[in-house]
Amino acid sequence: LHVPHSTPRYPEETMLRRSRDMYTLMNQRRSVRFISPEPFPQEVIDNVIRTAGIGAHTEPWTFVVVSDPETKHQIRRIVEEEEEVNYRQRMGDKWVHDLAKLKTNWIKEYLDVAPYLILVFKQTYGILPNGKKKTHYYNEISVSISCGLLLAALQNVGLVTVTTTPLNCGPQLRLLLKRPANEKLLILLPVGYPASDATVPDLKRKPLDDIMVRI
Amino acid sequence: LHVPHSTPRYPEETMLRRSRDMYTLMNQRRSVRFISPEPFPQEVIDNVIRTAGIGAHTEPWTFVVVSDPETKHQIRRIVEEEEEVNYRQRMGDKWVHDLAKLKTNWIKEYLDVAPYLILVFKQTYGILPNGKKKTHYYNEISVSISCGLLLAALQNVGLVTVTTTPLNCGPQLRLLLKRPANEKLLILLPVGYPASDATVPDLKRKPLDDIMVRI
Ligand SMILES: Cc1cc2nc3c(=O)[nH]c(=O)nc-3n(C[C@H](O)[C@H](O)[C@H](O)COP(=O)(O)O)c2cc1C
Ligand SMILES: Cc1cc2nc3c(=O)[nH]c(=O)nc-3n(C[C@H](O)[C@H](O)[C@H](O)COP(=O)(O)O)c2cc1C
Repeated sequence: LHVPHSTPRYPEETMLRRSRDMYTLMNQRRSVRFISPEPFPQEVIDNVIRTAGIGAHTEPWTFVVVSDPETKHQIRRIVEEEEEVNYRQRMGDKWVHDLAKLKTNWIKEYLDVAPYLILVFKQTYGILPNGKKKTHYYNEISVSISCGLLLAALQNVGLVTVTTTPLNCGPQLRLLLKRPANEKLLILLPVGYPASDATVPDLKRKPLDDIMVRI
Repeated sequence: LHVPHSTPRYPEETMLRRSRDMYTLMNQRRSVRFISPEPFPQEVIDNVIRTAGIGAHTEPWTFVVVSDPETKHQIRRIVEEEEEVNYRQRMGDKWVHDLAKLKTNWIKEYLDVAPYLILVFKQTYGILPNGKKKTHYYNEISVSISCGLLLAALQNVGLVTVTTTPLNCGPQLRLLLKRPANEKLLILLPVGYPASDATVPDLKRKPLDDIMVRI
């Protein structure tokens, strides 16, 4: 069944203003690794996840929102243990060198401190009512798109995060959080206000002409 | 070098309102396959792409924006030719059945009609000033995240699109658009106002409790 669809339509000046305002707001987003423990209403997280959920209707994802201190601490232990091995053994010198600029290492205090951790799982397949598997085409792209909406929604309410992809931690975190076998951890996001003394690496973005080609 | 970072901070009421408003706006987003040829200012597209570009500073992407009618038509011919083979031969019956619900087939009129086509290429590696290759870790996730921001930015200005992943067309489109060998087509987005008689499949989104788990 198809149904009619309409979207809000704005005069050209309004379109231009809205496009500039959104860019200005999003351009302030940075990955912040120093997060404040201050609480904020859970409904904000709910709305942010609802917003992420509009990435596509196949919805091959589960967002696990962790605020329980004990569970956050167990997550931290799993991530730090694997990350230390990653840094010391698995990653090439080049990677470690690339990361040195960001001053990241295997100590992830934000995993205890942030009021919420959002663990985004992709569902590689779904289960139909009749028990059969249903392939989710392009599940990784879909879930990453929804993470993009999630980043936009967080920025829009003044919260910060850092997109992380903890290497080799997926299976242990899946078991800890009791997620089924069809789910794989894609991204882990600690969420909160920035710490008052938060700093970020002094990176410059590419100018538009370096990322866009007109034909 | 690290520098201090701060983000706009809102009172809790404002946070809640902003989180609800963003959800309400984004919840109106649908994939629209009936696009109007009406023009709109190019600066809107520029700002939308600038916004997408804030997904992450490694920026392993090129956004090719096509408005030239002849190039759009060549893109349409490449995509339709491959998609017809996909539908008739390569895809399983199950996939074709899943797509039937969406009423999609290999005819892609929107590729001629939409005022802009945005072709998003991921750079699997970059080239350093000294000519060496620089691996882009997680380039597909990064580029998909930036597409999520792009979808949010389009919705925010009242434009529509449909996220498409044209199977097997990447190499031909890369050559047509003269992109280098380190770039792979990830997503093709036709962009415009919705056609006045646009319809969409009558899909329902999952409720929050089906996509979110609290711990
Ligand atoms: C797909 C992806 C994976 C990332 N993984 C990590 C990670 O595991 N740990 C980390 O500290 N930062 C991670 N980052 C954050 C990047 O380091 C950061 O986005 C980049 O340095 C650009 O900075 P910006 O986000 O402030 O623009 C990741 C970013 C992306 C997009
Ligand atoms: C990663 C991804 C790939 C997609 N590929 C195609 C495609 O090749 N052709 C198409 O018509 N729609 C494509 N879609 C659109 C989906 O069919 C659409 O998002 C889904 O039916 C949900 O509808 P909605 O976007 O209106 O919420 C794709 C969507 C995603 C997220």
